[in-house]
Amino acid sequence: MTEETASGGEFRFHLQAHDPITGARAGVLHTPQGEVPTPVFMPVGTQGTVKALCQQDLRNADARIILGNTYHLYLRPGERLIAEAGGLHRFTGWDRTILTDSGGFQVHSLAALSKITEEGVVFRSHIDGSSHLFTPEKVIEIEHALGADIIMAFDECTASPCSFDYAKQAGDRTLRWLKRCVDRYDRLGHQSANGSPQALFGIVQGSAYPELRAAFADATVRFDLPGYAVGGTGLGERKADTWTAVETVTSRLPEDRPRYLMGIGLPEDLIDGVARGIDMFDCVVPTRNARNGTVFTRHGRMNFKSAVWARDFSPIDPDCRCYTCQHYSRAYLRHLYHAGEITGLRLATIHSVHFFMDLMREMRSAILAGRFNEWRTGFLSSYRSTSTIN
Amino acid sequence: MTEETASGGEFRFHLQAHDPITGARAGVLHTPQGEVPTPVFMPVGTQGTVKALCQQDLRNADARIILGNTYHLYLRPGERLIAEAGGLHRFTGWDRTILTDSGGFQVHSLAALSKITEEGVVFRSHIDGSSHLFTPEKVIEIEHALGADIIMAFDECTASPCSFDYAKQAGDRTLRWLKRCVDRYDRLGHQSANGSPQALFGIVQGSAYPELRAAFADATVRFDLPGYAVGGTGLGERKADTWTAVETVTSRLPEDRPRYLMGIGLPEDLIDGVARGIDMFDCVVPTRNARNGTVFTRHGRMNFKSAVWARDFSPIDPDCRCYTCQHYSRAYLRHLYHAGEITGLRLATIHSVHFFMDLMREMRSAILAGRFNEWRTGFLSSYRSTSTIN
Repeated sequence: MTEETASGGEFRFHLQAHDPITGARAGVLHTPQGEVPTPVFMPVGTQGTVKALCQQDLRNADARIILGNTYHLYLRPGERLIAEAGGLHRFTGWDRTILTDSGGFQVHSLAALSKITEEGVVFRSHIDGSSHLFTPEKVIEIEHALGADIIMAFDECTASPCSFDYAKQAGDRTLRWLKRCVDRYDRLGHQSANGSPQALFGIVQGSAYPELRAAFADATVRFDLPGYAVGGTGLGERKADTWTAVETVTSRLPEDRPRYLMGIGLPEDLIDGVARGIDMFDCVVPTRNARNGTVFTRHGRMNFKSAVWARDFSPIDPDCRCYTCQHYSRAYLRHLYHAGEITGLRLATIHSVHFFMDLMREMRSAILAGRFNEWRTGFLSSYRSTSTIN
Repeated sequence: MTEETASGGEFRFHLQAHDPITGARAGVLHTPQGEVPTPVFMPVGTQGTVKALCQQDLRNADARIILGNTYHLYLRPGERLIAEAGGLHRFTGWDRTILTDSGGFQVHSLAALSKITEEGVVFRSHIDGSSHLFTPEKVIEIEHALGADIIMAFDECTASPCSFDYAKQAGDRTLRWLKRCVDRYDRLGHQSANGSPQALFGIVQGSAYPELRAAFADATVRFDLPGYAVGGTGLGERKADTWTAVETVTSRLPEDRPRYLMGIGLPEDLIDGVARGIDMFDCVVPTRNARNGTVFTRHGRMNFKSAVWARDFSPIDPDCRCYTCQHYSRAYLRHLYHAGEITGLRLATIHSVHFFMDLMREMRSAILAGRFNEWRTGFLSSYRSTSTIN
């Protein structure tokens, strides 16, 4: 690949700072839709919206990049309809950066009766049971139609635990599939159906086996892609294994490309990931938990359904600048939740997404100021990750 | 009552204009929370929120007054909790005008096993089956605790159809209950638990019997209250009977007091009501229909779930200035609905509430300009009330 194709056209990543103590780094992703300061958390917009939020809510939290799920959007409303709309940005009204995953995780976790062959994955829709085939080429075509700024290669995401033999087999296939993804990506001119540049990221698998992680990382880097992801983590493996895998992979990735840890995670995970040189994260944790009655605060998770908040007329966090904390109380949120009012789900989601965005902004500032480790110590001294406040 | 108590303290109504052809009138309600230009539509905030919306959404539509349901708020979270929060305005974050109904409608329509005696209504909660008694005094106490700016008297709301004898019996009891409501209202000093002035409105019943409507209207007016409502309409009776009842009542109500037609209605009903001198309306139609997949437009109702909009990338109404129409397409709303995304319910609700607010603003402007009848003809020439657009 030429330098221009490797960088994905308008896609550039500028590293700005390294933390002197940890592996943390700060940078800026430049995409056709603007700048994304890193490290960054990407709220998950599964079906064309971050659940319970509208695009203005995300702008209010100054989210710069969101994720769309290829599997879901392919099934409904379909990538052709989205291409007709002018792509995912136009269809959803989100004019900042979008990353689409490849469906590699969903076809294993959500779809029924999936069957993996060298050709690809045959699966049945979780919506209507219809049968579908995802091949590496097909997935790149779908992501081309969806038109995200960053697109992920189709991988075989291993469950956890996973035998060495299967992890090796899946990782080897992921590399063969990556070749096929890159070929189709090259043929499509590194751009979306509506002519906007797209950056393809490769995914490194290897489960909890450091020797596999190392070998797959090296092989993936040979494709000289605009960015790389660590896949197959956060699936139930021990935390120590997650971080060994991350460290093994990031130590072999080029410094000048963004690193994305897929599907992670909780606030403490984001901090641990940043400390190991991860630049990008996504997770449904802030949004899904909010809809289930738990929000994140500087002191840990708060179960806002609890009776202890029934008469607490203070905001979730008096220091938080989100719309919810500026206008509503814990007692009100609790009431809305118990009354089954969807407004409560949105207000809780607004807070938690804002909290995650603030957390990333704080980490970035600390890295730029050369005091990430100090910030981490301070944050973790008040944040209780192991319990939920009522 | 003295002039001051009759006017409900800071509560004043100024009539500004009468339409020269119809009975339509324009005015301004002054409440402790600000000005409410009339005629006005009140979005229904049943359980402390207008369903699917937050207070900023309502401000964006320039809603000036919303309704809260005493029955629902009494059951959950309870009027004492709301009083502790400083009243409904503080609890919900809505700092404009609020009207609470009396629960007279809900105890008949929602509660199980309700039993009416002269003392009041015994009913079982639709939430947990617990038994409760609403008396006129109890309801005024609850509304005193909730702290709305306008509170409704407890009435016996007759179903439709309804025999003359039962309509007379229910209306007579409603008058006896009104006396008890007024006595308690007087004793509470015409103010809420947190000291804010409250205006009590009486409700005229009488079903579809003009002679009863006339007699009850006359008897209700003798209480010299700050406002009057027409109750017991929109319950399945013929439209002609609704308007006969409204005309009978409004012709006997004092010109200088606001008139509220409860639980009405569709856009064409609002126009018909305004033409008969009604100043205030409430209905769940814009919000409930939006959550069920139907929005209102200048051309009639639009079923945005329909397949015909799947690839329509234009807004619901290109001329609408609501957030939804400014940012999202029919195809996107349809997708969100079918994908089960609650964001779609909010976006649809935002549009329809905005449409209702615009409709009332247009009527008011037309009345002030002396051309309401002309405006009505123009509006109805393009608005199809009898069908739904796909």
